[in-house]
Order: sequence, then C-alpha cells, then structure tokens
Amino acid sequence: MKALYINCTLKKSPRKSHTQGLMDISQNIMKQEGVTYNTIRFVDREIPVGVQPDMTKEGYTKDEWPSIHREIMESDIFIIGTPLWLGEKSSIAQKLIERLYSMSGKYNEKGQYIYYGKVGGCIITGNEDGAKHGAMGILYSLQHVGFTIPPQADSAWLGEVGPGASYLDKTSGGPENDFTNRNTTILTYNMIHMARMLNENNGYPAKGNAAKAWKEEGKRWAFQKMHNS
Amino acid sequence: MKALYINCTLKKSPRKSHTQGLMDISQNIMKQEGVTYNTIRFVDREIPVGVQPDMTKEGYTKDEWPSIHREIMESDIFIIGTPLWLGEKSSIAQKLIERLYSMSGKYNEKGQYIYYGKVGGCIITGNEDGAKHGAMGILYSLQHVGFTIPPQADSAWLGEVGPGASYLDKTSGGPENDFTNRNTTILTYNMIHMARMLNENNGYPAKGNAAKAWKEEGKRWAFQKMHNS
Amino acid sequence: MKALYINCTLKKSPRKSHTQGLMDISQNIMKQEGVTYNTIRFVDREIPVGVQPDMTKEGYTKDEWPSIHREIMESDIFIIGTPLWLGEKSSIAQKLIERLYSMSGKYNEKGQYIYYGKVGGCIITGNEDGAKHGAMGILYSLQHVGFTIPPQADSAWLGEVGPGASYLDKTSGGPENDFTNRNTTILTYNMIHMARMLNENNGYPAKGNAAKAWKEEGKRWAFQKMHNS
Amino acid sequence: MKALYINCTLKKSPRKSHTQGLMDISQNIMKQEGVTYNTIRFVDREIPVGVQPDMTKEGYTKDEWPSIHREIMESDIFIIGTPLWLGEKSSIAQKLIERLYSMSGKYNEKGQYIYYGKVGGCIITGNEDGAKHGAMGILYSLQHVGFTIPPQADSAWLGEVGPGASYLDKTSGGPENDFTNRNTTILTYNMIHMARMLNENNGYPAKGNAAKAWKEEGKRWAFQKMHNS
Repeated sequence: MKALYINCTLKKSPRKSHTQGLMDISQNIMKQEGVTYNTIRFVDREIPVGVQPDMTKEGYTKDEWPSIHREIMESDIFIIGTPLWLGEKSSIAQKLIERLYSMSGKYNEKGQYIYYGKVGGCIITGNEDGAKHGAMGILYSLQHVGFTIPPQADSAWLGEVGPGASYLDKTSGGPENDFTNRNTTILTYNMIHMARMLNENNGYPAKGNAAKAWKEEGKRWAFQKMHNS
Repeated sequence: MKALYINCTLKKSPRKSHTQGLMDISQNIMKQEGVTYNTIRFVDREIPVGVQPDMTKEGYTKDEWPSIHREIMESDIFIIGTPLWLGEKSSIAQKLIERLYSMSGKYNEKGQYIYYGKVGGCIITGNEDGAKHGAMGILYSLQHVGFTIPPQADSAWLGEVGPGASYLDKTSGGPENDFTNRNTTILTYNMIHMARMLNENNGYPAKGNAAKAWKEEGKRWAFQKMHNS
Repeated sequence: MKALYINCTLKKSPRKSHTQGLMDISQNIMKQEGVTYNTIRFVDREIPVGVQPDMTKEGYTKDEWPSIHREIMESDIFIIGTPLWLGEKSSIAQKLIERLYSMSGKYNEKGQYIYYGKVGGCIITGNEDGAKHGAMGILYSLQHVGFTIPPQADSAWLGEVGPGASYLDKTSGGPENDFTNRNTTILTYNMIHMARMLNENNGYPAKGNAAKAWKEEGKRWAFQKMHNS
Repeated sequence: MKALYINCTLKKSPRKSHTQGLMDISQNIMKQEGVTYNTIRFVDREIPVGVQPDMTKEGYTKDEWPSIHREIMESDIFIIGTPLWLGEKSSIAQKLIERLYSMSGKYNEKGQYIYYGKVGGCIITGNEDGAKHGAMGILYSLQHVGFTIPPQADSAWLGEVGPGASYLDKTSGGPENDFTNRNTTILTYNMIHMARMLNENNGYPAKGNAAKAWKEEGKRWAFQKMHNS
C-alpha cells in the first residue's frame, strides 16, 4: 500500500514547516506498518491556478499537476496537510482542491469518478484556531470528488488563542500533546484500515454510482422520480 | 440492513417538508434495494439542547435523545436531512450534531468511538445557496464522531439565487433536476455499498483507533514521539 | 446609548455560563463609558424555531421572539455571545440567526431593512477551536440583515487543542489572557464609536439601499443593466 | 473618494471574467456617483504566497503586493470579487486574505490597525452554490484586519444547482436577475455612505482600539479584569 501526503504550507523548502512536523508522526506509523509513503510540498512545485486538468493547454508554459495527479492515482491513501491563517486552510490547500476538482470530469474503468477507491484525510497545524474549519473544507472536497473518509480523519495541533509558539517551536508543547498524538495515530490507522478494505473489495461496485453510465447511457438503477413540480 | 434518516426541517408535522421531498428519492431506492429505513423528524420530538447523553440528568423533565440514539445504534446507515437558512444548515441540525457529540465519551466493545462501523451522509434543500457549506459542517461532524463517509455523500437541490420556489413547489423544477437526481442516487448506493463492506468486515479492526485503550491502558501501537518542544 | 447582549449558551440559568464570563469584560466597559446594557439568555426564553416573525401564528402557543426583537430595536448595539461545539457556534445561536432573518421582510421608515443603523458584534468562548469560524457565520448574518460591523468586532477565548479548562475554570488562564482582553476591549469601544457615528448621522441615507423602494416603486437610483444574457 | 476592486478570478487577462461582469454594475454606479475606482486582477500580478509584508525579503525575486497595498491605502472603499469552486472562494482570494493579514502588525498614526477607516465588501459569482460561504470568509477577514462592513456588503449571482451557465453566458439570466441587481446596487451605495461617514469623522477615535498603545504603553482605557482563574 502507498500513501501520498501533500503539504500545503506557504513556505518553500528548505524553510521549516510546522505542518510537516506533525505529519512526521503519521508518516512514521505508516513506515512501521509497512505502508510506503511520499511527500509533496505543493508550494515547491510549479502549479498554475485553474480548474482544468492540464493548464499548459490554457496558456501556461508549465504545469506539474498532471504528474502529481498520477502520483495520487498510484496511491491508496491521500492526506492533505495545511497550516491555518485567519482561521482558514492555506491558499495553497485551496489551489490543491481546485486542481483535484479539475479532474471531476474523469472516470475510472467502472465509470465512477476517478478518485473512487482511495482514502482521504487531513493533518493541520496552527497557532490558535481554525483546525475544524480547515478540516471541514478539505474533507468535504475530498469526499465530493470521490475519496472515502474514514472515522476521525482529521488531526490537528493548535496552541492557546492569540499569537504564540508554532508546532515545532520550543515551548509549544505540540509534539508532547497527548490529544494531538492520539488523534494523529487514530487517523493514520483508519486510513490504513479503510484503504485495505477498499483494496480487498476492489473499490466500490459500479452499481448506482457510475456517473458516466447515468450521463451517457441513461442508466438509472432503482432511481424513480417521486414528485412533480 | 437498516437506514435511519433524521429530517432537520424547522417545521413540525404535518407541515410540508421540502427536505423530505428530496429524501423520498433516496428512501425509495433503499426500499427497492431491500434496505429497511425509518425517518425521524427531529423538531417533532422533545429534545433539549445540551452536550450530555441524557439531559434529564441536567434538570430537563424529558429527553427523547437516548431513544433516538438507540435507533442510530441499530442502523447501519445514517443520513441527516436539512434545509438552509442564510447559507447555513438549520439550528435543528446543529442541535442534532451537538447531541451526537454528547456521545463522544462512549465506546463500542472494541474501545472505539460508539459510531464506528456506521456510514453517514446528508441530503439538503434550499431556495438558493449554502448546500456545500451545510454539507461541510454535517459531514465533518459525522466523521469526527466515528461515521465513515463514502464518496459523494452529499446531495442537494437549490434554485437560482434569491427568493424562489422551494423543492416541492410547482415551478421549482427540483424533482426533475437531473443533477440532483443523479447525486441522490449515487449517495444512496454508496451508503449501501460502504455499509455492506463495513458489515462484512465487522467494522474497523481495533488496532490504532481504540481511544479507550490509548487513554486507559496507555496503548500506543506504532506511535512514537518524533520531536521535542 | 443602549447595548443588548444575547448569550447563546446551551445551559439554562442559573448554571454557570463561561461565555457570560467573557461578556462581563465588555459589559463592564460599557457601564464605565455610560452605555446602558441588558443581557438576554436565549435558552431561558420560550422561543420556537422558525423563520416567521411571530410563531404563534404558525401554531405555537408562545413565542418570546417578538418582545426580544423589540429590545433589539430599542438598542444601538447588538452583541451575540456563543460557546463552540465541534468548531461551530451553538444551535441556540443558529436559532437566533434564523429569527433575525425572519424579520428581513420588515423595513424601517426609510424603506431599508429593519436593523439598519445598528451595530453588531460577537463574543465567543470555547475549549479549543472554532472561534473564527463561529464569528464568520454570526458576523455574516448580522451584516446581511442590516447591521454594521465595525473593525475587530469578534473577540474570543480558546484554550489549547483538546479537552481542557473552560473560560471561568480555575487554571484556564482565560480571564488573564492579554490577547483576549485586548480584543474584547477593542470590540467594545468600536461598537460604541460606530453606534455614535450612526446615531449622529441618523443611520444611512435612504439613497440606493431602500429595498422597499426598489421592489415597490421601481426605484433604481444609478443602477444600469450592463450586460445581456 | 476612491474605490479599489480586486478581482480574484483564477483566469489571467484577457480571458473573460464572469466576476468582472457583475463588478461592472457596481463600478458603473461608482462612476455615476462620482467615486473614482480602479480594478486589479490579482492573478495577473506576480504575488508570492506568504504572510510577510514584502516577500522579496523572504527569498522571492519579485512581489507586487507592497504596491497593491499602497493602492488599498489610497482608497476609501475596498471590494473583493471572487468566483466559487466547490462552494468556496478562490485560492486567489485566499492568497489576497493572507497578504492582507500580513499587514496586521502595522499601525496607522493613531496606533490602530492599518486598514481602520476603510470600508470593505465582496462581489461573488458562481454556477450554483457557495456565495454566502465565500462572503463569510471574506467579510470576516476584512473586519478582522480593520475594515468596516456596512449592511448588505455581499452581493452575488448563482445559477440553479449543478453545472450550468456562468454569469456572462447567454442563457444565464444573470445580468437580468433582479435580486442580484438590487443587492449589487445596495452594496455599492452602502460602501459609499459608510466611506463618507468615516471620512467625515476622520475614521475611528483612538480610544479603546489602539492596539499599539495597549501593547507598547500598557494603555487599558476602561478595561478591568473581571474574573480570576
């Protein structure tokens, strides 16, 4: 099994990413459980904004998204890491969501959305506020484009309200926070459990959820119109 | 298999619920696929606000939540329906989320959160705006307390911006909306597929996600501290 | 000048409200600056859910909203206090927003929405997360129905991530938190400054914003259609 | 008086921006009311992500934000336009918010946050959903960094749920939508009214809201500690 983490920090390498600090815990568990993983720092890559699969066809000279999309396709588990600013996920995370959404016209061999059969989650760090709000947006988007969200798929660290230490700073208490460590552990194991279950079942049966068959073949399964307007 | 729908309309029976109108499509598919279902109209029940499992222990004379919780526990599939006001899920839906959250100190026999092994989704109707926002809050809360969210677990109908017809009104076009009908169909089938998968696997293995074992027995699985602060 | 605070705690009197604890700071400043204030604990009152101005006309036997609405109308400043559950404002706060919205068909003597000329803000407490998210929903709704939002109209206290002390608990550090105290002070003064400015200007001129004149008299001011579709 | 509009479309010039289509209505009113305005298409400019005032000091070779910030400072009115993707404001709008936030350590000559005395609003277009959610995030951020939000400061156009025509497309009905036209008109006039009021009052008195005096001089005005923990 393979996991892909995309870190949506605003800071380019080699600057310190606090979000990576928390992702380290999850990745270490993956390693010990025999799950291969890779990390992409989205801000390091040349990725235009837009909602098309390949923005070089929209006038941009370079677009690394198609190769990142291929890496997602080769993975069973997909985890988005993000910092928080003004109580919201980063603009880089929002750009990632837009690019994920740009693939929503693609189908797998069953005619389902392309990300069916994969598992999604998020890992979030911030000084003080916004982890649940950031997770709402990320997890919503992931399930909407086809990922499965297992229980407790959001893990986060936040300090007390107001400016203060970031996760990896001395005095943050972050790496020792029992609540965050527990939730990061649970998130990681549930990603593995659900990915295994989906692999064993070869994803979802094509019944009732193949958008392609609905659109192109008029397939309706047990759907019936219930009212008139 | 059993499904439970809780309709969070603000209107008591027997007033017309547009949200129920859309839920009818999902429920008809359940019936044809051999899934038993029940509907609770939350506003019809006497349910105090609060974040304790049984509010009669907090001074209220009656609380129907414990019996509703039992119905959720007997179901494999749990779907929240809500209307939208000012771009937000209803206060009744928010009260339901608070009561779901009030059970987060309970564990199943594996020591996992009590809703593990169940599948969650949402069905939303509004005049004009807020379906995705409402779904963000609902689906986030469901996964956070232990439900699994399969792909495309949010279905909705909205009219054009501004005041206008509601779902069941003549001229709404809602019941004929191909996009809404497709998404409601997909949501329903994915609820069934994932519920079956979880049933066949007897939910999630207790490894790595048993909050009780972490808290009470110091169990850590492959978790290791990665940094110091 | 008069200020009205509505506390949207889930707990009825006389239980301790941590949100009231933080509101005390703001109210003490009001008192010293010569602003009269009153507090309503919304959960103590008999207020049905719904989006009509008076729910006794919809089958409920009692509705205290109309009298609360009159109190808002007699006030210059309106501040909503709320706790947070799962990173969201309380269901009681959502019910309050729905009832505020239920008045959006009413106009003042200028034909503007009824809450024009009044100032709005929010005060939020939680264990760990969601203050900005809660404020987003509250402040959005207030401006949408006619209130003016001065700068830094959101003040909050949150502890570190995870379960922990609430605001008034010993060891919370809340009442001593410099960041929260500063923001609560700034919020309170900006409410006063803007309320005074609006009073001196007799609210907003009726030009361009009188929804009633647009709807009923076809008044358009300098509006011109710019495109065709 | 001057107004600045920042259009946060994902599409570079000269591609058609539907959001600009709706902003045209507001800008035409500004012109007729004698308010000078300028438009910046944020995606056309070279603006790194980050939360520092000038990212050339963080390793980037170019950063047009400081000059854009100066334009905001020379304006009385600031309006953010954004499209919606997956029910959320664009990543470009989020980047703009991060850069606005990066100035939150700056003070005006009274020691208040730098954007005090300016008025903020938003104009939003989307195919189907998310206008209120997008406005929540934008207006929250604007007031949090010092802007004043007058009533009904959010205007939007959305089509019916599902894929469909965008604002400027033939058959959208957008430019003829009475609800959107009214709200855009009201937004524009309220921006003007509040900007005039703030100009006449020379912004906010420095009493109680000068963060600099609180932090650097220990100034507390009428603030008093009310509880102990």
